[in-house]
Amino acid sequence: KRIVLLPGDGIGKEVINSAKDVLNAVAEEFNHSFNFETHEIGGAAIDLYGTPLPESTVDACKQADAVLLGAVGGPKWDNNPSHLRPERGLLGIRKALDLYANLRPIKGFKNLLHASPLKEEVVAGSDLLIVRELTGGIYFGTPSERRDNGQTVVDTLAYTRKEIERIVDKAFQAAQGRRGHLTSVDKANVLESSKMWREVVEEKKAQYPDVVVEHVLVDAAAMKLITNPSKFDVIVTENMFGDILSDEASVLTGSLGMLASASLSEDGVGLYEPVHGSAPDIAGKGIANPSAMILSTALMLRYSFQLNDEATLIEDAVQSVLDSGFHTADLHIPEGRRVGTEEMTRLIVDYIK
Amino acid sequence: KRIVLLPGDGIGKEVINSAKDVLNAVAEEFNHSFNFETHEIGGAAIDLYGTPLPESTVDACKQADAVLLGAVGGPKWDNNPSHLRPERGLLGIRKALDLYANLRPIKGFKNLLHASPLKEEVVAGSDLLIVRELTGGIYFGTPSERRDNGQTVVDTLAYTRKEIERIVDKAFQAAQGRRGHLTSVDKANVLESSKMWREVVEEKKAQYPDVVVEHVLVDAAAMKLITNPSKFDVIVTENMFGDILSDEASVLTGSLGMLASASLSEDGVGLYEPVHGSAPDIAGKGIANPSAMILSTALMLRYSFQLNDEATLIEDAVQSVLDSGFHTADLHIPEGRRVGTEEMTRLIVDYIK
Ligand SMILES: CC(C)[C@H](C(=O)O)[C@@H](O)C(=O)O
Ligand SMILES: CC(C)[C@H](C(=O)O)[C@@H](O)C(=O)O
Repeated sequence: KRIVLLPGDGIGKEVINSAKDVLNAVAEEFNHSFNFETHEIGGAAIDLYGTPLPESTVDACKQADAVLLGAVGGPKWDNNPSHLRPERGLLGIRKALDLYANLRPIKGFKNLLHASPLKEEVVAGSDLLIVRELTGGIYFGTPSERRDNGQTVVDTLAYTRKEIERIVDKAFQAAQGRRGHLTSVDKANVLESSKMWREVVEEKKAQYPDVVVEHVLVDAAAMKLITNPSKFDVIVTENMFGDILSDEASVLTGSLGMLASASLSEDGVGLYEPVHGSAPDIAGKGIANPSAMILSTALMLRYSFQLNDEATLIEDAVQSVLDSGFHTADLHIPEGRRVGTEEMTRLIVDYIK
Repeated sequence: KRIVLLPGDGIGKEVINSAKDVLNAVAEEFNHSFNFETHEIGGAAIDLYGTPLPESTVDACKQADAVLLGAVGGPKWDNNPSHLRPERGLLGIRKALDLYANLRPIKGFKNLLHASPLKEEVVAGSDLLIVRELTGGIYFGTPSERRDNGQTVVDTLAYTRKEIERIVDKAFQAAQGRRGHLTSVDKANVLESSKMWREVVEEKKAQYPDVVVEHVLVDAAAMKLITNPSKFDVIVTENMFGDILSDEASVLTGSLGMLASASLSEDGVGLYEPVHGSAPDIAGKGIANPSAMILSTALMLRYSFQLNDEATLIEDAVQSVLDSGFHTADLHIPEGRRVGTEEMTRLIVDYIK
């Protein structure tokens, strides 16, 4: 299997190595062969090639079986013009690979729940999957421009019915493989795009009789995620609502540093990345938590390679290391032991072997 | 003073009476004269006049000194076509009166904090004001339509520089009257409108040297509201982000039924309404919490009539009744006493007299 590694910026460069170590261990144990190729994206690519997404990177990803991404961004490039910002690389690779489905599973780790900002009785039992449309909506729609001599500005939220259909299908299928409950989030009382979104969900319902569907307005969903997170199973929503709600949801269980995500295309390659960012403040210190990156490799094995046992083994390894009380600086486990990126990785690798 | 009452739907009809009772008590105590005129909006207006916002209602509001709104909406009208939905009445009156500035103060009530989904140490001390732009952005931009035979759909997020400037000014001024801290929320790493937004905030900064400004991306803001709510003072943001974030923030303190809001125009009339909705499930039962509506009248006295003592008296009255352990069914106070809408109102009125 050909795997492209895109370390990106900040701690992305550190945690990507952990992913490689873990995959090498899995390869050894299960007799697989993974070939790695590293390419640049984001700020690193701007520095080297003058663009956040070199064509060589896109080409390599297109020919790969899967892509692992660290993180992009940092203060160094914050004042660059739009087309020279690290984020453009991320948006660009999503579009280039047609990664329309962003899946973010959010589940509490028992011995980390105490770090949740929510009361334990509120957050207990939460286990949800956010399915975010990733290549449409207002982050990609045109026109997106100044007008009238800079006196007005517009952005455009655009969707084709097809784009809505495929993400809604994906979400229904995910719900079938889980607890059979789907919450579709929109603003159908105001937006025309949300009305079409709701129509599509209603149309598709008949194809998935085993899934219970509810519609929730985005403002109400932002409330309910906090007051009743455990009531959700699968949430499906458009790009921008998904951006906001998935980040909101990511802090509920007190373990942002543990969250992985998958971005999938229709038949092609998938991209896997931690939910956390490039964390410039701790970059280079060897203290970043590699778990989210490592758990992203588990998602890769499961979704792109159908290697379920291997994926589960990685997840068990992470849980077991936590259970033994080992944790990185971003977490706290009462009476646990704090370790750095490399030692955390080594502990996980040891479990796998 | 001429005050237009727009009861609207559901519990809106019940709590608006509480507002009137409280204002009558204030008038008596302080020798003011308030004249009330009731008009229809939302579902009630659809039923009576076939439109969610009759012209007679708009005219009356334009001639009033202030407007009090209950709430709009209910399942009865949920399947109506867009132009016959109660929400259109709300969006319409905001636009007709140019109510560009929506102010939502969010502060915990000491004896209700225990009902917060957040841990007490996380939410303690939270006292924030969300300033939401209310008449621009994607809820009003055109085109908002289907295209290509219904195969595509667009909504438009549009702002003029002027619209951004006036709301940003409002927020800076609000911050000056508070703790001098302003958080501007945008998605400047992706949206052109957000870039203009951030530019305007940066330009205005010099005029308000006593205010400390920070920019936070909307996804990060959605996280930080939960992990660190007490770090915020004033938050300013565009319409849709404000819709989502203000609802998210409204559940943090465990007392949604206590939250009031003000919607202000440049020099004209202001509209005051509770943050909660029409609550069709409990409508007509006499158990709705009138506090948010009553606290909205306090905001009216303060912002529209500059009657600060009167406003403060109302706020003290509500706090004192809570302190005595009285609460409506939506709240719980340990060893308190549950009362209905009328008794809650009477207790508050009694305090005022
Ligand atoms: C960096 C940014 C463009 C991106 C997004 O908003 O999509 C990020 O916030 C994310 O959620 O992956
Ligand atoms: C009813 C709806 C149009 C409205 C809005 O989104 O503006 C409401 O949610 C609000 O926040 O006042």
